[in-house]
Amino acid sequence: MNRKIYLAGPEVFHPNAAALGRQKQALCREYGFEGLFPLDSEIAPRLTATKMAMAIYRANRRMIESADSLIANLTPFRGPSADPGTVFELGYAAGLGRMTLGYTNEAGTLLDKTRAADPAASRDAARHVWRDRLGLEIEDFGLSDNLMIACCLDAGGASLLINPCIEDRCLTDLAGFRACLDLVQRAFAA
Amino acid sequence: MNRKIYLAGPEVFHPNAAALGRQKQALCREYGFEGLFPLDSEIAPRLTATKMAMAIYRANRRMIESADSLIANLTPFRGPSADPGTVFELGYAAGLGRMTLGYTNEAGTLLDKTRAADPAASRDAARHVWRDRLGLEIEDFGLSDNLMIACCLDAGGASLLINPCIEDRCLTDLAGFRACLDLVQRAFAA
Repeated sequence: MNRKIYLAGPEVFHPNAAALGRQKQALCREYGFEGLFPLDSEIAPRLTATKMAMAIYRANRRMIESADSLIANLTPFRGPSADPGTVFELGYAAGLGRMTLGYTNEAGTLLDKTRAADPAASRDAARHVWRDRLGLEIEDFGLSDNLMIACCLDAGGASLLINPCIEDRCLTDLAGFRACLDLVQRAFAA
Repeated sequence: MNRKIYLAGPEVFHPNAAALGRQKQALCREYGFEGLFPLDSEIAPRLTATKMAMAIYRANRRMIESADSLIANLTPFRGPSADPGTVFELGYAAGLGRMTLGYTNEAGTLLDKTRAADPAASRDAARHVWRDRLGLEIEDFGLSDNLMIACCLDAGGASLLINPCIEDRCLTDLAGFRACLDLVQRAFAA
């Protein structure tokens, strides 16, 4: 039976979500894997909003549980950090002990990206840290995202793959995804 | 031995992080629990940034593993959604099968908050959805945050506690936290 990979990422919000999911699944097949894509719209559409949300949640959880590995698209989503749904799923997979991998299609550290998004960010010279407009410290470990996200991948042996793209391709470029598939293949072969 | 609760939230970035942590821990003691607060600065400060990040990650993971429950401060953080580090930890705790609870000190649905943050968001009449400035669908299930976050709490039996505060108290108000402690106490008594 083929190894299964859960395909976490904000592609589900893209107008061409289904096509993007099929593209990722086709790449998985090239590597001999089965890609599990959480396409929300396949859930019975007659449910109320609340019941539909819970049905999607349970379906995604079951898919992650049935997978051997998770590859997360951690490209910044509406801010300096990854999509929170994807981050939850990464944490869930790590809690289950699954192999976790991730890529981002945007360069820059969390500090760079947070400062770019918050012109009122400033240096606190006394404490040697940067603070956002509310005075909250901005993490500065040279990582692409919050340390729990970046270090989860480091701890699993495959650091976050950074594959800077022009904004147009930011959500759709698959070079980083393909590099993750290479790593999964090598890990399962070892 | 007292039950342990991991105290997840963006308080770690507050200038008074240590004091906020002690306040939460004192409330935990009132309920007979031990509160585990992930104060990053207690990690050996002589390490390089990369090694320090990994040491914090491993310490936080171990604390979550040793806890019976996790209470997450899911108040919006630099955008419409919760702090991604907190979201990762919520997912990790759920993957481990821990009891998960959460509160937010800001009212409004994810759709409301995303539209407020993105003046270019618009209605896609043909598909009956809202889209952000990049054309990505904005989740609209009437929930406070991404469905994976909100439904994780619903599935655990204790829905996200919403306790709207004025902005000044948004990160520090503990009424929602206290309500979560009530629920944990009842759940462990049952």
